[in-house]
Amino acid sequence: MSSFGNYFKITTFGESHCPSVGVVIDAPPSNFKLDLDKVQKQLSRRRPGQSDITTPRNELDQIIVLSGMENGITLGTPLTIIVNNKNIKPEDYNFSEENEFDFKNYIPRPSHSDLTYLWKYGIHAKSGGGRSSARETIGRVIAGAIADQILEKHNISVTSFVSQVGDIIPNEFETLEENLTRDIVDKYKTRCPSKDSDLIERKILELKENGNSIGGKVKCIIKNCPRGLGEPVFDKMEAMLAHAMLSIPATKGFEIGSGFDCVNQIRSNHNDVWLKDGKQNK
Amino acid sequence: MSSFGNYFKITTFGESHCPSVGVVIDAPPSNFKLDLDKVQKQLSRRRPGQSDITTPRNELDQIIVLSGMENGITLGTPLTIIVNNKNIKPEDYNFSEENEFDFKNYIPRPSHSDLTYLWKYGIHAKSGGGRSSARETIGRVIAGAIADQILEKHNISVTSFVSQVGDIIPNEFETLEENLTRDIVDKYKTRCPSKDSDLIERKILELKENGNSIGGKVKCIIKNCPRGLGEPVFDKMEAMLAHAMLSIPATKGFEIGSGFDCVNQIRSNHNDVWLKDGKQNK
Amino acid sequence: MSSFGNYFKITTFGESHCPSVGVVIDAPPSNFKLDLDKVQKQLSRRRPGQSDITTPRNELDQIIVLSGMENGITLGTPLTIIVNNKNIKPEDYNFSEENEFDFKNYIPRPSHSDLTYLWKYGIHAKSGGGRSSARETIGRVIAGAIADQILEKHNISVTSFVSQVGDIIPNEFETLEENLTRDIVDKYKTRCPSKDSDLIERKILELKENGNSIGGKVKCIIKNCPRGLGEPVFDKMEAMLAHAMLSIPATKGFEIGSGFDCVNQIRSNHNDVWLKDGKQNK
Amino acid sequence: MSSFGNYFKITTFGESHCPSVGVVIDAPPSNFKLDLDKVQKQLSRRRPGQSDITTPRNELDQIIVLSGMENGITLGTPLTIIVNNKNIKPEDYNFSEENEFDFKNYIPRPSHSDLTYLWKYGIHAKSGGGRSSARETIGRVIAGAIADQILEKHNISVTSFVSQVGDIIPNEFETLEENLTRDIVDKYKTRCPSKDSDLIERKILELKENGNSIGGKVKCIIKNCPRGLGEPVFDKMEAMLAHAMLSIPATKGFEIGSGFDCVNQIRSNHNDVWLKDGKQNK
Repeated sequence: MSSFGNYFKITTFGESHCPSVGVVIDAPPSNFKLDLDKVQKQLSRRRPGQSDITTPRNELDQIIVLSGMENGITLGTPLTIIVNNKNIKPEDYNFSEENEFDFKNYIPRPSHSDLTYLWKYGIHAKSGGGRSSARETIGRVIAGAIADQILEKHNISVTSFVSQVGDIIPNEFETLEENLTRDIVDKYKTRCPSKDSDLIERKILELKENGNSIGGKVKCIIKNCPRGLGEPVFDKMEAMLAHAMLSIPATKGFEIGSGFDCVNQIRSNHNDVWLKDGKQNK
Repeated sequence: MSSFGNYFKITTFGESHCPSVGVVIDAPPSNFKLDLDKVQKQLSRRRPGQSDITTPRNELDQIIVLSGMENGITLGTPLTIIVNNKNIKPEDYNFSEENEFDFKNYIPRPSHSDLTYLWKYGIHAKSGGGRSSARETIGRVIAGAIADQILEKHNISVTSFVSQVGDIIPNEFETLEENLTRDIVDKYKTRCPSKDSDLIERKILELKENGNSIGGKVKCIIKNCPRGLGEPVFDKMEAMLAHAMLSIPATKGFEIGSGFDCVNQIRSNHNDVWLKDGKQNK
Repeated sequence: MSSFGNYFKITTFGESHCPSVGVVIDAPPSNFKLDLDKVQKQLSRRRPGQSDITTPRNELDQIIVLSGMENGITLGTPLTIIVNNKNIKPEDYNFSEENEFDFKNYIPRPSHSDLTYLWKYGIHAKSGGGRSSARETIGRVIAGAIADQILEKHNISVTSFVSQVGDIIPNEFETLEENLTRDIVDKYKTRCPSKDSDLIERKILELKENGNSIGGKVKCIIKNCPRGLGEPVFDKMEAMLAHAMLSIPATKGFEIGSGFDCVNQIRSNHNDVWLKDGKQNK
Repeated sequence: MSSFGNYFKITTFGESHCPSVGVVIDAPPSNFKLDLDKVQKQLSRRRPGQSDITTPRNELDQIIVLSGMENGITLGTPLTIIVNNKNIKPEDYNFSEENEFDFKNYIPRPSHSDLTYLWKYGIHAKSGGGRSSARETIGRVIAGAIADQILEKHNISVTSFVSQVGDIIPNEFETLEENLTRDIVDKYKTRCPSKDSDLIERKILELKENGNSIGGKVKCIIKNCPRGLGEPVFDKMEAMLAHAMLSIPATKGFEIGSGFDCVNQIRSNHNDVWLKDGKQNK
C-alpha cells in the first residue's frame, strides 16, 4: 500500500512517466492558511539538476492543487496535489514499445527494483523506475512541506543536512549542529554546511565523470518535539521514524540518539539525566 | 477519513467546485487490461441531466487517468483517476466571496450537511456541498466500474434497480428479479424496470414542478458471490455492505436477505435450506 | 479480523467452548476510575437463562481483568478482560471427538455458520458455534459497558429496548420513547417496556414449546450525542453504526432516523428543521 | 496502539505486575498443527535468570492458551495466549500503595519511560515498568515462536545472535554466519557463538558487580525469504523490519544489507549482481 500515517495520512501515487505524480493528504487541519509558495520552494529544493553534482534532468515541478483548499485555506478534506510529468522519454530507458515483455532479452538494471517489480507484479512500467523512481518522493516532499507549516505553528523545527559523504566526515560545521537552519544548509551545494563541502563536491564530480556515485549520511535535528509523542509499544516515535526513513529508496540504516555508538557505552554513562524546570537535576 | 476497503482500498477526494474530483485505488490487480470506455459508461449512467426527471446540470464527466496504468494495462500501483469540475458557479449557492464567514446572516440549507461541516471544521466550501456534494460519488462510481470489470472475470455480477418510489411498489418487473441486467434496467428512465416506470416518472415530474422530490428504494442482486466472503465477526460481508451503503448521502436504511420481513417469521420457516450438489437437500 | 473501532479499538476473542472468551480494548482513557460491578451488571443482563423465555443455559459469567488496570484505575494501556467458559459439554452438539472431520456424515445445522466456517477455514470448532456463538458477544458487552461509563461522563446515554416481536407492535410504551431508561426496560422480562410485554412473552413461550422462536426489532435511543461525530464520507456515523449492528449475528436490517419510512416522504416534509439556541427556527 | 502486522496481526497486552501478559494473534492460518512445546521453548530462551549474566528473576513463564485452538489445531480465529505474572512485589519498586501519586517526591528512574508515561497518561503502573517492562516482550516472543513454525513450513529460517558487546567484536564465529543455527547459538551463555563469548561474559559480570551493564549488537540472518516481499513504497520489507526492531525497548539503530558501511562504497561496487539460474550472471 502507498499510504503512511494516521491523522495526517499521506497516499502517494504516480510512476516516473505517467501523466502525474502526487499525493492525497487525508487530512490536514481545517481552516489552515497554507502557503503554496513554501511548498513549491521545498519541491524545488528536491529537484535534480540544480547543480552539476546531481542528475542532469532539469524538471520544472509545478504543484497543482486538485482538491481540499479554497482561497488558500484548507477545508479539512482530502488535499490532493499533483505535479505533471514532463520529461517523458521512454527511449531513454531502452525498453521496447511493445506490450509483450521480452523476458528473454531483458537485462534489468542492477541494484534497481525493476526485476523485483517484474517478479511481483508480472509487469513493470515500460520506462523509468515506475513507483521506485525518485519521482515518487515528490508526493512525500509536498506532504512534508505542508506538515512543516503546521509544525511551525507549534514551534517545532526539522532541519536535515549531509553529515558524511564517502569517507569525508566534517569535524566542524558552520555552526553548532543545534543551530543549523535550512537557510544555512542551502548555502552549500552539497547540503553539507561545512568547509569540507568543496571537498565533497570535488569527490562527487570526480566519480560522476566515471559514471559513478557514492554513499552518504543525512542527519536530522528536530527541535521542540513534545514529550510523550508516539505510542508505547509498536508505534514508538523512533520506530515510526525508522519505518519512514527506511522507506526512502536506497536507505540502508537508521540511528536515533546516540545510535550505534551506545554499543560501547556502559549504562551509567548512557543514562539520560532528568532535568527539573529546564535545569539539570543534580 | 476518505478511504474504504483493504486490498482494493479506495480514497476519494474533491469538493463540488474545486478543480477536480477523483479517486486513488490502492491497488487494482496488476497486469489487468482495463476498459476505460466501460468506466466512462458507468460514469455517464451516474450523470445528472440525462433525462427530465433528474437535476438539470448537464455535466460532461470525462475521466483522466493520472497514474497506475500504461498502454491500457494496470501496473499494480495506485491507480488515480480524476474528473475535472466544470460547472463552477459559486453564485448559484448564494455564498459570499469573502474569506470571513458571515455566521450571523448565514442560513444553512436544511437537511444538508453545510451547518455540520461548519461546526466540525470551522469552515466549509464557499459554494456547493463540498465533500457532501453528490459529485463525491464520482470517485466511487469510477472505482465501482473498475471493480466490476475485475468481478466480471470471476463471473460475479452486480445489478441494481429502483424497486420503489414513494408509495409506488411495482408488483411485477420486466423479468424475474434474478434475470434483470443493467441493460434491461437502463431501458427505463427511472431505472425501475417495470411498466410502473411511467407512473413513477409522472410522480417525480409532478413533485419537481413544485420544487420537490421523494424517497425511494434500490434493490441490488449479486450473483455468483463466493461462499465464505467476509470476516467472521465485525467485518461480516453484510456488515461491510451496510457500512458502504449507509455511507452514501441520504441513505436511511439497509436490509439484506429477508431483511425486516424476518421479524414476523418463525425460526423454522426462516431457516436457509442447505443444498447438496446444487439441489435442495430434502 | 476481530477488531472494531479506532481510538477505542476492541478485539474480541474466544470460541464457545475454549477456555475463555474476552476482549482487548486498546485503549480506554487513562486514569479513569472504572466500576467493574457495572460491567458485571451489563454482562449479567446479557446472560441467557435469566427467565424462562431465553435459552436455558445458566452461565455465571464472572469477569476477570488481566491487564490495563491497577487499583480500579485504567492505565491507558490495553485493557484485557475475560470470562472463563464453564459449560463445556461438546456432546451437546453431537460432534465426534475425533480429529478427522467426518465430512460425509456431517449434517450442518441450518441457518448457522457451521458449514461456512468449514468451507472457509477447513476446520471448525468441534463443539458449539465457535466464533459464531453468541458467547462471542460477551467481549462486546464488556467493551460496551466500559464505553457506557466513559460516555456517561459526557452526559451521553444509550438506551435500547425491544420494539416489536413477530407481529406484535406495541402502540404505547410505559413512557415516551425518549424518556425510557434501562431501569424501566429491565422491569419487563421481554425488555419491551409496554403492557404488550405479557403478550410477547406468551407468544415466545408458545413457540418455545414447539422448539421454535421468532424475529424482533430493537430500537436504540442515543441522547446528547455531540454534533459533527463521524467522518464526512465513508465513516459517517450512520455507516459505522450500520456496520456495527449488522455485525451482530442474525441481524438482517438497520434503519436510522426516519428509516425506510422516508421512502414515502416528500423532501419538503422530510427536511430536518434547524433549531436556533435550542428552539425551533421559525 | 499495541498492534503490529496485517494478516498475522499481533496485539500484546499486560504490564509487569498485572495478573497476566499475553498476545492475541489475529489470525494464524487455520487448521495448522501448532507445537506448543516449541513456543514454550522460545519463551524459556527469553526468560531472565537463566544464567548469572542476566537479571536474577527466575520466572517460570508457562503459556496458557485461552482461545483459537482445539486439540492442538488452530481454528483460524484469534489465538490468545497468556503467561501469568507471579513475581508481583510492588515494594521492589519503591512506589507507595496510595492512589494519589506523590509527584513532589517522585524520583523517576533515569533512562526508563516512567516519567514519560506519567506525563502522557497522567498515571503509571505503581510498580515496575508497566507496558515498558521487558515482560511486554513475552507476547512478542510467543507470536514470534508461532510465526517461526509457520515460516518453517515454507523453509524460511530466522537466526539471531549477539555479534558485538561493548568493544568486543568477534572476528570469527563458530561457523560461517550463514551456517549458524539457534542450536549453535544456544551453546553460548552470551548467545555470541564465538570463542570470544567468555571474554564477553567476563566483561558483563565485571560490570554487573558494579551495578552496571553495557550495549551490544544483534545480527539476524533470514534465509529463503521469498522475493518480492513487502509493499513497494512505505511498507518496504526493510522499512517494516526497521519499524519492528526499533519498537523493541532500548534499541537505537538498525541496519540492513551492507548498512552504514555502504556510505563509503561507490555505486559500481555496491551494486547487487543478478544471478541467472542461481549462478552469478557474468
